[in-house]
Amino acid sequence: MAGTPLYPPSVVRLVEEFSRLPGIGKRSAERLAFHILSTRSENALALALAIRDAKRNLRACRRCFNIAEGEVCAICQNPGRVQTELCVVELPRDVIAMEKAGVYQGLYHVLQGRLSPASGLGPENLRIGELLQRIQQAQTEGRPVREVIIATRPSSEGDTTAEYLAGVLAPLGVESSRLARGLASGTDFDNAAPSSLVYAFRGRR
Amino acid sequence: MAGTPLYPPSVVRLVEEFSRLPGIGKRSAERLAFHILSTRSENALALALAIRDAKRNLRACRRCFNIAEGEVCAICQNPGRVQTELCVVELPRDVIAMEKAGVYQGLYHVLQGRLSPASGLGPENLRIGELLQRIQQAQTEGRPVREVIIATRPSSEGDTTAEYLAGVLAPLGVESSRLARGLASGTDFDNAAPSSLVYAFRGRR
Repeated sequence: MAGTPLYPPSVVRLVEEFSRLPGIGKRSAERLAFHILSTRSENALALALAIRDAKRNLRACRRCFNIAEGEVCAICQNPGRVQTELCVVELPRDVIAMEKAGVYQGLYHVLQGRLSPASGLGPENLRIGELLQRIQQAQTEGRPVREVIIATRPSSEGDTTAEYLAGVLAPLGVESSRLARGLASGTDFDNAAPSSLVYAFRGRR
Repeated sequence: MAGTPLYPPSVVRLVEEFSRLPGIGKRSAERLAFHILSTRSENALALALAIRDAKRNLRACRRCFNIAEGEVCAICQNPGRVQTELCVVELPRDVIAMEKAGVYQGLYHVLQGRLSPASGLGPENLRIGELLQRIQQAQTEGRPVREVIIATRPSSEGDTTAEYLAGVLAPLGVESSRLARGLASGTDFDNAAPSSLVYAFRGRR
């Protein structure tokens, strides 16, 4: 010891940055930092560049607000998807969970959050206005949406969001449904077994 | 599904790069990637830059081959360390483990590996030549090393390395000792409780 700092400043910084990642404690962060130090430069830089490029290249899809590389996401660009069904989810990771389950063939609309009075998040903070516009425009263009599947998470905020959506969708005359509560309350979609997502899709009401 | 890839290319790349880190499986890598996507750009870039700068700024200490920010590491620069004791370890992370235990006040010499016939690593691949030179130079300069503590890991390769070192140190007339085997065979130093490192230092023979 004798006053010597345990790590050089660049290592301290690296450990700190790794510690900020979800699920990475101090000890794991140290292990990751030492891995970076001992791995070949090109491998370490490949991670740094992947992070930088992800932030640079990815944006919200102009139509559905899913993650897109470019203006419009791969799902919206796919003519093989059922164009008259919309599944409304909270976050892009929910789209991934649905796609992994493989039970849904339509399009998505990503709210980019959920109503949360506790965090001061109201309808104006979500992509709800864009959802209503999207449905109305489809009607105007003679290719109306037949069904909106409300797939907010099975939590109290998710339920509040779903009820709010059902309320604003009703005047548009579009049929809406919700995923069956086969999921335990509080479960994240991405922790759910794909099969339980299949049941939830099939049991929607 | 209908042929749509699950992730855009930049996300695939990010998940792949995170998966390469030790102890990070596919699922954790996806979680980390989504964290990067949803976090503010400056936070994500802080990690990318910390990785880049660590590879740019850190090198092996010119004297002991520990990690250094600059030519010479903080321990070698510290005049408060006992200059006549050398603790020989395999890797920089072993130095950290020793320093955390706080039982040793001398200098280090980092071999940057261990003898491993199976991996084709012989004495010429380690910093053993530099160790002998360092000891001889100290003798020449009238500040001889009084004790070399061989602190290779308690594994068969660590033991082989320690025996080899004892053999090449003997002709130099320098006293050498090994850490007591209070540690279970195969334990990494950085998984050992600091107290067991204290016992290992005290019981060295």
